[in-house]
Amino acid sequence: MYSFQNDYSEGAHPSILRALETINYHQNNSYGLDEHCDNARDMIQEALENYGVDIHFIAGGTLTNLTFLSHVLRPYEAVISAETGHINTHETGAIEATGHKVFSVASSDGKLSPDLLRPVLKLHENEHWVEPRLVYISNPTELGTVYTKQELAELYAYCKRHNLYLYLDGARLAMALAVKESYLTLKDIPDLCDAFYIGGTKNGAMFGEALVLVRDEFKDHFRFNMKQHGAILAKGWMIGVQFEELFRDNLYLELGKRSVALAKTLKDAFAKCNIPLLAEAPTNQIFPILPDELAEKINAKYLTTFQCKPDEEHTCLRFCTSWATNEQAVEDFARDLENWTLSVS
Amino acid sequence: MYSFQNDYSEGAHPSILRALETINYHQNNSYGLDEHCDNARDMIQEALENYGVDIHFIAGGTLTNLTFLSHVLRPYEAVISAETGHINTHETGAIEATGHKVFSVASSDGKLSPDLLRPVLKLHENEHWVEPRLVYISNPTELGTVYTKQELAELYAYCKRHNLYLYLDGARLAMALAVKESYLTLKDIPDLCDAFYIGGTKNGAMFGEALVLVRDEFKDHFRFNMKQHGAILAKGWMIGVQFEELFRDNLYLELGKRSVALAKTLKDAFAKCNIPLLAEAPTNQIFPILPDELAEKINAKYLTTFQCKPDEEHTCLRFCTSWATNEQAVEDFARDLENWTLSVS
Amino acid sequence: MYSFQNDYSEGAHPSILRALETINYHQNNSYGLDEHCDNARDMIQEALENYGVDIHFIAGGTLTNLTFLSHVLRPYEAVISAETGHINTHETGAIEATGHKVFSVASSDGKLSPDLLRPVLKLHENEHWVEPRLVYISNPTELGTVYTKQELAELYAYCKRHNLYLYLDGARLAMALAVKESYLTLKDIPDLCDAFYIGGTKNGAMFGEALVLVRDEFKDHFRFNMKQHGAILAKGWMIGVQFEELFRDNLYLELGKRSVALAKTLKDAFAKCNIPLLAEAPTNQIFPILPDELAEKINAKYLTTFQCKPDEEHTCLRFCTSWATNEQAVEDFARDLENWTLSVS
Amino acid sequence: MYSFQNDYSEGAHPSILRALETINYHQNNSYGLDEHCDNARDMIQEALENYGVDIHFIAGGTLTNLTFLSHVLRPYEAVISAETGHINTHETGAIEATGHKVFSVASSDGKLSPDLLRPVLKLHENEHWVEPRLVYISNPTELGTVYTKQELAELYAYCKRHNLYLYLDGARLAMALAVKESYLTLKDIPDLCDAFYIGGTKNGAMFGEALVLVRDEFKDHFRFNMKQHGAILAKGWMIGVQFEELFRDNLYLELGKRSVALAKTLKDAFAKCNIPLLAEAPTNQIFPILPDELAEKINAKYLTTFQCKPDEEHTCLRFCTSWATNEQAVEDFARDLENWTLSVS
Repeated sequence: MYSFQNDYSEGAHPSILRALETINYHQNNSYGLDEHCDNARDMIQEALENYGVDIHFIAGGTLTNLTFLSHVLRPYEAVISAETGHINTHETGAIEATGHKVFSVASSDGKLSPDLLRPVLKLHENEHWVEPRLVYISNPTELGTVYTKQELAELYAYCKRHNLYLYLDGARLAMALAVKESYLTLKDIPDLCDAFYIGGTKNGAMFGEALVLVRDEFKDHFRFNMKQHGAILAKGWMIGVQFEELFRDNLYLELGKRSVALAKTLKDAFAKCNIPLLAEAPTNQIFPILPDELAEKINAKYLTTFQCKPDEEHTCLRFCTSWATNEQAVEDFARDLENWTLSVS
Repeated sequence: MYSFQNDYSEGAHPSILRALETINYHQNNSYGLDEHCDNARDMIQEALENYGVDIHFIAGGTLTNLTFLSHVLRPYEAVISAETGHINTHETGAIEATGHKVFSVASSDGKLSPDLLRPVLKLHENEHWVEPRLVYISNPTELGTVYTKQELAELYAYCKRHNLYLYLDGARLAMALAVKESYLTLKDIPDLCDAFYIGGTKNGAMFGEALVLVRDEFKDHFRFNMKQHGAILAKGWMIGVQFEELFRDNLYLELGKRSVALAKTLKDAFAKCNIPLLAEAPTNQIFPILPDELAEKINAKYLTTFQCKPDEEHTCLRFCTSWATNEQAVEDFARDLENWTLSVS
Repeated sequence: MYSFQNDYSEGAHPSILRALETINYHQNNSYGLDEHCDNARDMIQEALENYGVDIHFIAGGTLTNLTFLSHVLRPYEAVISAETGHINTHETGAIEATGHKVFSVASSDGKLSPDLLRPVLKLHENEHWVEPRLVYISNPTELGTVYTKQELAELYAYCKRHNLYLYLDGARLAMALAVKESYLTLKDIPDLCDAFYIGGTKNGAMFGEALVLVRDEFKDHFRFNMKQHGAILAKGWMIGVQFEELFRDNLYLELGKRSVALAKTLKDAFAKCNIPLLAEAPTNQIFPILPDELAEKINAKYLTTFQCKPDEEHTCLRFCTSWATNEQAVEDFARDLENWTLSVS
Repeated sequence: MYSFQNDYSEGAHPSILRALETINYHQNNSYGLDEHCDNARDMIQEALENYGVDIHFIAGGTLTNLTFLSHVLRPYEAVISAETGHINTHETGAIEATGHKVFSVASSDGKLSPDLLRPVLKLHENEHWVEPRLVYISNPTELGTVYTKQELAELYAYCKRHNLYLYLDGARLAMALAVKESYLTLKDIPDLCDAFYIGGTKNGAMFGEALVLVRDEFKDHFRFNMKQHGAILAKGWMIGVQFEELFRDNLYLELGKRSVALAKTLKDAFAKCNIPLLAEAPTNQIFPILPDELAEKINAKYLTTFQCKPDEEHTCLRFCTSWATNEQAVEDFARDLENWTLSVS
């Protein structure tokens, strides 16, 4: 069965495998202090057009989030996240395990805005409450929606006015940047938040994320916190080499575009069959609301992820595409969908 | 400059790279629930001749140690470690960061024994003290020494009598098992401790350790703790595939033997030049005590790790060999050493 | 200005001061292992008609909650609380600081029920989510509402069926028990939850709460966790003596009745003036919704606590009565209120 | 049996009980924001001749230590303590439970010095090690020894040069200040460390310590951390009133002198009988090394604390005196000792 379950079902982009093989017997400094990591850092700084940021490579997203957040927050400080935020739902309380409350805010599209933050700040008034100190957002969000450059700028301005850090979880950042309508480019990001990570795992890498620390006060002793959380790999260049490849010739952005283009094909197929989507999600995650009978037919032939039951007779599934998604499989699915829809209706 | 600095300077055993390439576009279940991890677990169980153990794959040693220890200890329970134990020195307080005291015990050879544990238990008598609950050992130790089967059996018997768990950090387990004189084989390990890990990073893998939970009470909900600490990789099969290769045709043990054999060549070279060693270390780490002048000559041509200054005129360096160490380099070094020693004396 | 701000503005019931004076020069065992604590434990067991429970004395409510919850939860386990629950709002993230997520549930009256818990359990399905393990309730709630015996029994039955502990924060337990309509008596409590505390601070003590552990699995090593959190007083009998007095001749329950009776007088005064209340709160906390002009008049003469602004023209204040509230002050206020209302309308 | 077990066996100085009774029905602001706490803070500042320090009242020593240390340390920072330090032995890992390693240093007299700190700093060199950031000392130490003003000044100068905070646990500070030979006065303390606490529990209070924050960077948001650890009492004035009394007319220092004077009587008695002491301890804790037979005789009539067995035939006991110790009991004991020694020898 072909799988549209997620964007981390296949290995690594071939150029990454090739590079790892080429340098296999070179001797490297350990713990991320090698020349591949250094070079990858340079390449990312260049792509960001920002040479003041610090960049650290960490094996996965949860480990990146918990290491970063526990580093920048004092014990009584808390994070504000959308209710659907990854740290609030799918990281097994990793942030709380480092001692910090995650204050969750209901948001219909998975995004945060000054309007949603205002009441939270009003509520937290003295030492009997945690002190909200950092706003966590994902872009794209867990619902596949994206922030426009304008929205992000407004959110960040609000955060700065209210002594809040803004942190952007970029597990799928390449896919957000592939959405032209948001007018957001890679080099904008360091100007619009205090820290973020560039996700590798979901966009061509075997594993590995590049955490970018923009704000100076985050930089000091960060590697101590990494080591304490087991977030420094002995063979750190394993991630450095991957990011060298991802940032050579715009590969990172190209892979994101490919994911989004294939998702667009799926979206068109659903539209053609008059199947509504859960959210206006322009990235590589599609959430069609399907009649139960059709959902069953799909699940008999394709792997997808169950999202929710919006009502008694419908099922919402998540379809994901990625750098590795087979184009033929997407076309096959579109044809199958059309056939099934005709037979169902 | 050729490096004897550590056993994690090169990439991965070629068969691992080949395997990763072969399956690169196969779609896998995520989070370590795939068939490669399952298969690797089966292969390890078979090598252990123990089919009741649970096996989890984690990206690195510190992450393995902190995830495991925080899972099995209640808040007021503490770990006993040799003063030189990795968790006590080189993990930036990772265990304490999960809330647990590491009670350190001075030990001349880096090993623990019932005689060293007895006074610790006597000291900790009531609720004003932490409750020692787990004994952490490394085999080989951080000084390159190993436990004999007999020593391990006595230590474990003592632990069981005193309600202490015994956990063995096997970052370099293959090298301990390569020491014939210790009479310890891989399949003995699950009978001689409550949990341990089989280190991949230092013995042929890119990264990855296999944590083996022997005691039933450790098994429940372990994956929750892994996820909470960021210790589940999205593409978990990346480690599974590596352990499939390491446990095919005894590769894991063979690589350990190779490391130790090359270290033996180094050791013989030091002996030939009448250079004493810091400890009787039969594994892949050698700690020669060198006249300062000789140490300088060495460091001008080879990379090693500074260990300590035993006195004003001598320097102790650490030499490491590994599965990837170049045989020619070892021979070159032996010849250089002989020449330098002659010229110095 | 007379204060109705809270129920912890005055010192201790005179019999407590007398008892402390009487035994001032007696030499006692330290750390709560003295005969006064023992005797108080016996008296509480007798009042509960339950001789199997363990009882520990702790200086305050937050310290009691965090010590207890961190003792019974494993690292990946979480608490479910009403959004208004004290641990979720007014304890500065104390529970999260011990590593555990507090999952908050919206509840109009501050109470939890099986209907409110069901969707939470459904959501938390695997190791990517925290594991809900304990339900935290307050009785009375932070809104002054109470659970009936029937409601509590249903909630506890649901918890037991779903492997959830039920913990009752009884900071104002005496006030809940003073509400006859709930049919709940002190001796019912150990049958209707797994642990609870009997609040002293808000009902006649200088400070001190009696934590009652009903479930056997909570009892082991509890004092270790207390000491670790600084929750064992050197002169532990200071709390023991207070609970001896509170449980002599039903004083504890009588003081609760007095608080509630005085609150009833306030409530009647508001009713007489046609001033609505925020919630149907039968205990010692009253939340009248006042025209702003009237609220200002009140605040010029009495101290109260601001609760919220339900709309542009009204202010909701909290009035608290206690064992120490001056009866004359209550009557004065009732008369003032009537006068002010006449003049305002 | 008369008890010399510790200095917290009796209640409170009578003037404290009287004060609590006098204000019992006054209405106070809660959470330590009342006029008694404010007044006590003023009185302590005056006694310290330092008006820039912040002062917080906390119920006990362990709670004070863990709240303070978790406030000032970043996650990867560690404490250095003498092996015998209270936080290293008798607080059930309270500091580690907040995430920080306590690095213990062997010290024959329980004191720390630049010479003992130097090797610790040398050892901790990079991000694989915790970062030593704070030096914890007790004065008097747990062995009854004291720092001279000169020693403290040298230690603090060393700390400042090496970016280490110096924190002084003053559980028995009054007793240290009663030792004239150390030339240390109360007003010297804020000049010789970054923070310290003035112990009430062991010197006349029911409970309560006054934490003094000297360094400005500690002051911000401290009450948030207090609340998070359950270290703010609802009726905070209960401690404020006690410190008002202790700092009226030098009572605090006078009580310390009394304790030490009575200990001197005991010491003289041991000297007269040629009984050696474990350490040259000039404060209120005496550690005589007694022939076993004599120790048994003592324990049959008096309560003391077992300290250790220095050899097969001797027992070391701890004798404590306090503000409440009965002078007659001390004299009785001296006479008993003389009689028993005569009969034994």
